[in-house]
Amino acid sequence: MTDAGSLIEALVAQLGNDGVLRGDAELAGFTEDWRGRYRGAALCVALPSSTAQVAAIVRLCGEHGVAVLAQGGNTSLCGGAVPAADGHPPIIVNLSRLRRIRHIDAANNSMVVEAGCVLATVQQAAADVGRLYPISLGAEGSCQIGGTIATNAGGTGVLRYGNTRENVLGLEVVLPDGSVWNGLTALRKNNTGFDLKHLFIGAEGTMGIVTAAVLKLHPLPTRHALAWFAPKDPAAAVRMLGMFQTACGAQLSAFEMIDAMQLDLVIEHVPNRRSPLAGKHRWHGLVELADTGRGEALSQQLQQVLEAAAAEGLLEDAVIAGSEAQRGTLWEIRHSVSEANKKAGVGLTTDCAVPVSAVPDFIEQATRAVRAIVADLPVLVVAHLGDGNVHFIPFFSFEQWQGVPDQGAMAAAIRRSVNDIANALGGTFSAEHGIGQTGLNEMARYKSALELGMMRTVKRAFDPRHLFNPGRLLP
Amino acid sequence: MTDAGSLIEALVAQLGNDGVLRGDAELAGFTEDWRGRYRGAALCVALPSSTAQVAAIVRLCGEHGVAVLAQGGNTSLCGGAVPAADGHPPIIVNLSRLRRIRHIDAANNSMVVEAGCVLATVQQAAADVGRLYPISLGAEGSCQIGGTIATNAGGTGVLRYGNTRENVLGLEVVLPDGSVWNGLTALRKNNTGFDLKHLFIGAEGTMGIVTAAVLKLHPLPTRHALAWFAPKDPAAAVRMLGMFQTACGAQLSAFEMIDAMQLDLVIEHVPNRRSPLAGKHRWHGLVELADTGRGEALSQQLQQVLEAAAAEGLLEDAVIAGSEAQRGTLWEIRHSVSEANKKAGVGLTTDCAVPVSAVPDFIEQATRAVRAIVADLPVLVVAHLGDGNVHFIPFFSFEQWQGVPDQGAMAAAIRRSVNDIANALGGTFSAEHGIGQTGLNEMARYKSALELGMMRTVKRAFDPRHLFNPGRLLP
Repeated sequence: MTDAGSLIEALVAQLGNDGVLRGDAELAGFTEDWRGRYRGAALCVALPSSTAQVAAIVRLCGEHGVAVLAQGGNTSLCGGAVPAADGHPPIIVNLSRLRRIRHIDAANNSMVVEAGCVLATVQQAAADVGRLYPISLGAEGSCQIGGTIATNAGGTGVLRYGNTRENVLGLEVVLPDGSVWNGLTALRKNNTGFDLKHLFIGAEGTMGIVTAAVLKLHPLPTRHALAWFAPKDPAAAVRMLGMFQTACGAQLSAFEMIDAMQLDLVIEHVPNRRSPLAGKHRWHGLVELADTGRGEALSQQLQQVLEAAAAEGLLEDAVIAGSEAQRGTLWEIRHSVSEANKKAGVGLTTDCAVPVSAVPDFIEQATRAVRAIVADLPVLVVAHLGDGNVHFIPFFSFEQWQGVPDQGAMAAAIRRSVNDIANALGGTFSAEHGIGQTGLNEMARYKSALELGMMRTVKRAFDPRHLFNPGRLLP
Repeated sequence: MTDAGSLIEALVAQLGNDGVLRGDAELAGFTEDWRGRYRGAALCVALPSSTAQVAAIVRLCGEHGVAVLAQGGNTSLCGGAVPAADGHPPIIVNLSRLRRIRHIDAANNSMVVEAGCVLATVQQAAADVGRLYPISLGAEGSCQIGGTIATNAGGTGVLRYGNTRENVLGLEVVLPDGSVWNGLTALRKNNTGFDLKHLFIGAEGTMGIVTAAVLKLHPLPTRHALAWFAPKDPAAAVRMLGMFQTACGAQLSAFEMIDAMQLDLVIEHVPNRRSPLAGKHRWHGLVELADTGRGEALSQQLQQVLEAAAAEGLLEDAVIAGSEAQRGTLWEIRHSVSEANKKAGVGLTTDCAVPVSAVPDFIEQATRAVRAIVADLPVLVVAHLGDGNVHFIPFFSFEQWQGVPDQGAMAAAIRRSVNDIANALGGTFSAEHGIGQTGLNEMARYKSALELGMMRTVKRAFDPRHLFNPGRLLP
């Protein structure tokens, strides 16, 4: 190990005194996650203002044999952005000061941004030139581009535009040896060897520190139409998804499903939320169309497909938003899920994805598996159905949860039973949240030895000393 | 080195006598490319019928220290599918017998196919269930899925649907040590470690042999509209591309540009080709919209944007196809380019891509650079403008070419001058054709030492003995 004092001195010489944070008070916001669930020690927080400074920090850490943890907006849901409670304290390299938008090329539908740019800032800069950067998620007001790339962020735009991976054209990365890879190409076609950017996207900081990226932009949608509907069951919802895809193609921009109990919790626990439909229905869906340009109203197309679905007996009821305000009101119901569940009890959220066709089986089998552990336990279903991504949430009342003798073991057993079902159906235990600190056991369980070996081979080849996020991603 | 005879004996024991081709007559169609430009020796051609047989071949080659060259439909344009003329003869593993469509999941918009499936067969199987597999290119009647993955094939659908890379969900791969990686997931979202499939897509057989893939399907378009137009100049064409993207979003499915001389060559040398427009124009464009479902005629939208472009002075003339037959006729002009050029003279085709915004500068500067070598040399321009991909073709008459003392040196000097311009504009020398045997010098010239080093690190980590396509991809 190293003399931490001399490393910090060297960092101060590189970054200036205000570029290196020390002491518990200064570190608090960086060593603990935003929900207060994960906390670990760090030697200091380094605040570089340039790619060259990031490289200098990495080289110094290499000389001192100290681990490096890259951090963006610290909005991870699984402890991915803060140090572990055990292990040697790393240097946290927080990218917030790398926040320039270097270049926007509207004609090429691309922009070059630094890692510390907040996602919402990037979205706005794109919109200002009539373009869309389509990654959109709850934390967009504080999460940073570098973090969205390191975690291959998903969110609500995936059905139409893909994950972050599909919206990155090029990267600038500081490698574990301190060298800087300039891969900032802005090309749609480039078949000249390995596409190296994929080594870093979704690698959660284990392979390099992303300092800048070329993002892919899209035309900015100007028209929207939204319907709330009650499908007969999940199989009917899957069938309707296919009808919308066939009829509306790329206009289909969201296809969500929640169950009745989840809707009821929102109405009960969040002010000003009302049921969109008059009757009682077991399943609820939200479908949205979006497009650019002018042209006929999209609500007519919604209407036609909904009528066809009703004629096939797939649909119990539906309402189309009659105004932008009503469209907002219906989205608010969907976005109030987390708030409602937090107030209503203890939800053991999961983040599975399965092939879209397997979603009905997944819900049925996972419900049965969970109830084999706790008889009659309620489950909530919140699904990005268009992506096959189901947040299946076994749900305890506060009283019931208090009565559980070993809560940790119960949470683990229930989550495991759900993840096992997803795995058996060709699915994954982590669709969009990533591995962080919580997913390591699941990686060991569900990934083949061969696949883990391939990942370790890649990691070792680029970071033989395991200085970048040691102990993360790979069990 | 090895005893070739004992290896071949062992292969015959694995594959049966008809699974191993030997002798010049049997090998001819496998050791020479379809245009007769590249030829090299092979120990034999192995014809496995299953993934297990591919793995067995690879293990045997490993034991004997013999190189392995994977081969699909042998349609490479740059010698990528046949052995080099020098070097140790490899075993060719031809995947043609792995041609099962294993599974189609229309609800999940995915299909699982083996590497030897012909691209057109896959397209048809998708269409039979109302889906589109969007990779489309000239060789689709004979090229195989494995080859399109190994080369990250582009083609005419890239503007709307992306390259092959963006249309592969999962892979099954035989690794250089003979183990089989089952990465056949059919998920839209999966954030569980490195996305390993990208190690093999576009790797031209240097990292593994793809034996099967999960392909991403899309709704099948049912409506089309096409216009032929004459933009004022390339800058006006780029501006019009932006107008179409803004107005038509994902409906925009093709945006091509050719110059007057290229059009004249087609009309002169290919029977039944006529100029789509009455007057003479320096630049020509083809724009197509496509969509699913019913809804208003797309030709109205074409018309509106063309009128807006005319009002801005971007457009000299335009015609909208009035029927499916006329749409076909206009596409035939575009597709007749290669035939015409072959008859008309000697074109030194290049395959550059630059940011779309840089295309006008690229054409201007590349023209100047080429004419600094040969004064007044004609150049043809055939551009997938929507992708920034320009086939810039310095063009010699047969007589002029006969007069060139050192043709090889001339071709190299001219291509180099064009590639240099692309590189200076942030572009690439190989947009869609790949490296094969011809691109190695260009890799050495345009890739940084750091980037080549990163690629070698990846290659070495998976194939330390350099058994898979040694000498390819990386100079």
